[in-house]
Amino acid sequence: MILVSVDDHVVEPPDLFEGLLPAKYAELAPRLVREDGGTYSWRYNGTESRSVGLNAVAGRPRSEYGIEPASFDDMRPGCFDIRERVKDMNANGVLGSMCFPSMPQFCGQLFARTEDKDVAAAMVRAYNDWHVDVWCGTYPGRFIPLGLPMMWSPDAAAAEVRRLAAKGCHAVTFSENPAAIGYPSLHSDHWDPLWKACSDEGTVVCMHIGSSSQLVVTAADAPMDVLITCQPVTLLQCAADLIWSPMLRKFPDLRVALSEGGIGWIPYFLERIDYVYDHHREWTGQDFGDRMPSEVFNEHIITCFIDDSVGVENRRWLNMDNVTWECDYPHSDSTWPTSPEIAARYLEGLSDAEIDKITHLNAMHHFRYDPFADLKRDECTVGALRASVAGHDVSIRARGRRFGASPTSAADLALTKRPA
Amino acid sequence: MILVSVDDHVVEPPDLFEGLLPAKYAELAPRLVREDGGTYSWRYNGTESRSVGLNAVAGRPRSEYGIEPASFDDMRPGCFDIRERVKDMNANGVLGSMCFPSMPQFCGQLFARTEDKDVAAAMVRAYNDWHVDVWCGTYPGRFIPLGLPMMWSPDAAAAEVRRLAAKGCHAVTFSENPAAIGYPSLHSDHWDPLWKACSDEGTVVCMHIGSSSQLVVTAADAPMDVLITCQPVTLLQCAADLIWSPMLRKFPDLRVALSEGGIGWIPYFLERIDYVYDHHREWTGQDFGDRMPSEVFNEHIITCFIDDSVGVENRRWLNMDNVTWECDYPHSDSTWPTSPEIAARYLEGLSDAEIDKITHLNAMHHFRYDPFADLKRDECTVGALRASVAGHDVSIRARGRRFGASPTSAADLALTKRPA
Repeated sequence: MILVSVDDHVVEPPDLFEGLLPAKYAELAPRLVREDGGTYSWRYNGTESRSVGLNAVAGRPRSEYGIEPASFDDMRPGCFDIRERVKDMNANGVLGSMCFPSMPQFCGQLFARTEDKDVAAAMVRAYNDWHVDVWCGTYPGRFIPLGLPMMWSPDAAAAEVRRLAAKGCHAVTFSENPAAIGYPSLHSDHWDPLWKACSDEGTVVCMHIGSSSQLVVTAADAPMDVLITCQPVTLLQCAADLIWSPMLRKFPDLRVALSEGGIGWIPYFLERIDYVYDHHREWTGQDFGDRMPSEVFNEHIITCFIDDSVGVENRRWLNMDNVTWECDYPHSDSTWPTSPEIAARYLEGLSDAEIDKITHLNAMHHFRYDPFADLKRDECTVGALRASVAGHDVSIRARGRRFGASPTSAADLALTKRPA
Repeated sequence: MILVSVDDHVVEPPDLFEGLLPAKYAELAPRLVREDGGTYSWRYNGTESRSVGLNAVAGRPRSEYGIEPASFDDMRPGCFDIRERVKDMNANGVLGSMCFPSMPQFCGQLFARTEDKDVAAAMVRAYNDWHVDVWCGTYPGRFIPLGLPMMWSPDAAAAEVRRLAAKGCHAVTFSENPAAIGYPSLHSDHWDPLWKACSDEGTVVCMHIGSSSQLVVTAADAPMDVLITCQPVTLLQCAADLIWSPMLRKFPDLRVALSEGGIGWIPYFLERIDYVYDHHREWTGQDFGDRMPSEVFNEHIITCFIDDSVGVENRRWLNMDNVTWECDYPHSDSTWPTSPEIAARYLEGLSDAEIDKITHLNAMHHFRYDPFADLKRDECTVGALRASVAGHDVSIRARGRRFGASPTSAADLALTKRPA
């Protein structure tokens, strides 16, 4: 088995921007500051963010999943150190990984809020250069690069997508609902220049849960379990926006990934959109020509899952060329360091061809990722990778220091989250 | 085949309150007023509602589904006339029906907003007496009665549940999220007296989509298709509230119905709640003893669907004693008047025992509904009922008069909706 994960997360190291910004902007870069008491925060553009390791709890006991890391000492080094990250990947048998950002938020909102858009653009470019050249570039063949967009301008975002594609980066992170973070919605034609660039360059638009900065809070006293249960299904709303907006029909080559959305709800969703189309199009005016909405979804949408036997069992409803797998390291929903064992449970009974598609071939195809250009295939299997780091410590270790109360309800968490 | 629908809707007739209120309150009853131009509105307690036939579009061409009925002339008489309703049920082969309210909103919010709670209580009681004795009572064996609660007081609501149970009514309509309409959430112990009464009396708590007065509006310019697609899955959040709140564990005999929620997403949901429990309980503190959350769901939650082959195909994940069927007459998602033909498509391949449970036995059991006490079984089949109204006109007929613009986006609709 070969495992490629299309959804993991990087915790940005303090020296990220070193040498990557034009001299005139170097002093404006985000700075990691050690506070009294040993916690850290990122300072940028007059704001302060204590999310130095948002939900980076891998390797900690489950009883500590609610305690946010407030310092680099609270995390496994694999969260922020590329050498340690690769060891942690090896120990989990994972060959390839696509890493979403933490500090700048999912679509680089931190930078987009900068008033001077030249500064904002310099920050996005420097971040992307670090991500592609340093984070992913240090270990050729081990990472799928993922760029930040320039949210304030579809034209600037398009140019950045083209610049990154030339560097071999064919994924861009975007919001599951840009309207929720103050931009035009997926239904407008505002984003067309970006979609055209992605379409031209074969760049996948990745929409991760939480990238609308909206948490599912049903009631102020709802326990955290409600939020954790419901959050992935926010991508059902994103999928509905995608399917009923003109964008997929306007850009036939565009591909969108629903990151951390799971797949078990998708067969239901596909039946639902076809029912809605059949039942309501005469008054809503939707037109899919000679196709059905479910066909358009299955052509354009790349799905992924951590642990979802219902979805795997129902794979005949899905396009098996578009289903991918994720590890979610180092977040609390991750299966690290026993991902292969857990994956084996729900992949049992599938053909080898199906397993290969889900575990690595689909990700390689869609993200134009070719690990075997750099690495020998027989060194890339779960067994070989694990053997290469025999003795690497993956034991569970308490690291939580209670700097503050951990959130006990969804509303608590919503109060502590960063601005959109 | 015998069909019992656990989710249909009544459009209240003008004479509803006649003779049912104490004399001192008779003048305060909601009054149906004909406006200039032929539209109607309900006036009550200083407010005015034009929703005289909310989404009651059965029998109209699909191109008119977006035009709200503004007068009784815009609807099939079966929407509001019990004699015509039974004919429409017969023509669709439907034996039994549970009807949700329109004018007072799903949990009687219209009455609950009355400042004088004695008046409010009188209105709720009169409405319930009409519903049970007149609407359901005119044709014994044809309806499952459904009471309105007294939302402002769990004790008063409990007393009303007990009063209705004595009249043979074992269902009460409630909000999928009371916190969203200004009441304590499902996580508080506020509602315990109501749950205890329901538990004692064998009364099912019915939570219908839309009963939180929240519509899924992803963006102001999102087309209506987005809302129609997503609205049933709002019950996933309700299901998460139910499972993680103490109420089901505190009241082992309590049963809750997720009305118009569909079933295709439930297998995914069950796997998700067990994953969340396994993965996060050590810090969230949830405790299900020796059971799993999915078991508690399957024991307590009654599910239903209109047209959902994915759900039927995945029935092995569900408790087949709790799956029920619905018609949704006269709303736009309804399969009337060809429900039996559509149901046959997805029920094909099930055993007779399974079909009987879904189509009528489960509904009869949970709602303590025994049509065969009043009617001969062989007169209750689809074929017999249809034969009994041979010639009844079920043809599609344009009725829409464009008094105003029909909503074209979810935001439009949200703007026209009534207060919570």
